[in-house]
Amino acid sequence: MSFRRVAIMGLGLMGGSIGLAVQRHLPGIATSGFDSDPAVRRRAAERGLAGTIHASAAEAVEGADLVILCVPVGAIEQAASAISGALAPGAVVSDVGSSKQTVCRALASVLQGACIIPAHPVAGTENSGPDAGFATLFHRRWCIVTPPAQADPAQVARLVSFWQALGAMVETMDPEHHDRVLAVTSHIPHLIAYTIVGTASDLEEVTRSEVIKFSAGGFRDFTRIAASDPVMWRDVFLHNREAVLEMLERFLTDLAVMREAIGTGDGETMFDLFSRTRSIRRSIVALGQDDPRPDFGREDHEQAALRTD
Amino acid sequence: MSFRRVAIMGLGLMGGSIGLAVQRHLPGIATSGFDSDPAVRRRAAERGLAGTIHASAAEAVEGADLVILCVPVGAIEQAASAISGALAPGAVVSDVGSSKQTVCRALASVLQGACIIPAHPVAGTENSGPDAGFATLFHRRWCIVTPPAQADPAQVARLVSFWQALGAMVETMDPEHHDRVLAVTSHIPHLIAYTIVGTASDLEEVTRSEVIKFSAGGFRDFTRIAASDPVMWRDVFLHNREAVLEMLERFLTDLAVMREAIGTGDGETMFDLFSRTRSIRRSIVALGQDDPRPDFGREDHEQAALRTD
Repeated sequence: MSFRRVAIMGLGLMGGSIGLAVQRHLPGIATSGFDSDPAVRRRAAERGLAGTIHASAAEAVEGADLVILCVPVGAIEQAASAISGALAPGAVVSDVGSSKQTVCRALASVLQGACIIPAHPVAGTENSGPDAGFATLFHRRWCIVTPPAQADPAQVARLVSFWQALGAMVETMDPEHHDRVLAVTSHIPHLIAYTIVGTASDLEEVTRSEVIKFSAGGFRDFTRIAASDPVMWRDVFLHNREAVLEMLERFLTDLAVMREAIGTGDGETMFDLFSRTRSIRRSIVALGQDDPRPDFGREDHEQAALRTD
Repeated sequence: MSFRRVAIMGLGLMGGSIGLAVQRHLPGIATSGFDSDPAVRRRAAERGLAGTIHASAAEAVEGADLVILCVPVGAIEQAASAISGALAPGAVVSDVGSSKQTVCRALASVLQGACIIPAHPVAGTENSGPDAGFATLFHRRWCIVTPPAQADPAQVARLVSFWQALGAMVETMDPEHHDRVLAVTSHIPHLIAYTIVGTASDLEEVTRSEVIKFSAGGFRDFTRIAASDPVMWRDVFLHNREAVLEMLERFLTDLAVMREAIGTGDGETMFDLFSRTRSIRRSIVALGQDDPRPDFGREDHEQAALRTD
């Protein structure tokens, strides 16, 4: 049994994409949207990110049988408080946060008695805000659902079907494991990217103009990730501290081994690592989790501007 | 005055792309090619990477007024030795190596009296070998030329024009500065990417299958770079040790600051860094050094397979 009305709380990249995806893939479901920023609400209305856009959170969730909180994880408690008195009986409350342990605890404490089923669609781009969303963002991407032990299996199945209808593949896991997996597949990569882009900007011997010009040697890849939403990412690191620090230690240990190899001219250790890492790329492409074309199918400025599709 | 005959020594991604680019953009220039691997020579002949493919280095350089060594930097001395007796008088000898100080020294010592003008086109993909090259690889990318102090300005101008004809923009700098710039824009990004992909592969708490499935959260970007040619990259780190270790120290210092911020819950320090790094991305895109579309214009497996252009 599908949902009839979905309330989307927060109309940035994730919320906007959910609104557009529901309208495309599940046209029978009504959508209502809310954002605390009036400018975002105006733009969301212009783009039609949801069927109705509301200036109050309570109004937006009225009659919704699914409410999805699409705000940075640090704002989730406040967003939950804003709807706690207005939820329809039996409504499912979910979210899209990139860390799950603290989110699960916050939702459980603020929305006691509600049907809470946290989730995390592992999809996104470097853009954010009401102009960033698009209907196909979740196509062939994984959505991780982390239901509490006492969650009603029928409601979990409903949420799983919802995400599948938007094009996603769904996996269920406990919040602790989620946070560890995402620390390595998402949080540490972002931390490293932000850091090296900062390091490069601050150098005295190499100008910013040189860093930009010669970025095609590899650096530009990191700048994409390091252009992601600063509030969202600050909150991720504040809310997944333990797993991130644990994975960071592993990375630093491995990096120290490579530093030693470079210092002593140990080509064999380098060659061993550099050979091993190729196969994981092949698996990612084979499983449809990345573009099979060289260099992600990138085009230069002119080509991309000429493209019309 | 343009060159009349270009010899391409090594027919992988770079050599193959030069061969195809010359045939497309400078059809008046004859191309000859050599590779030490017979299987690569066969494939290069099938793809027509050069007008003639030769089984001996000396034969390939016969009559060439430009010879470009397109081998890993660790093999450059041997490649230079193989041609030293066969070079036409006045021939310009260049290369495409990613580090320049050791290459300049090696070429000067092996090819005494020759006109040596080392160069580094900052372009590439994660693919390597004779199937990887394509004619537009150098379009709108920078090529750094590092002429020795005594180089004939007329010959330097000839080489600059050659690269410009292949679609590249050219900048001249000294080898030491080149090695420092590339350490930060290319070598450290590769080292970090190789290392984090290795770290993720070795975890016990998170399976390889999970790392692959949930790689769209950021990790997959690093796997592309970490799929680059292992021999080429081993040689880069063996040949640009000092600059790489210097830049690695800066990165590690900055990463320690972020670790401290995460450990103490210092959101302000995180937010400051995460906000600063957005602008460098904008500059890279504005200067045509990256694809302006979100997520590099990536498509999923199915879309890319359907695309015919």
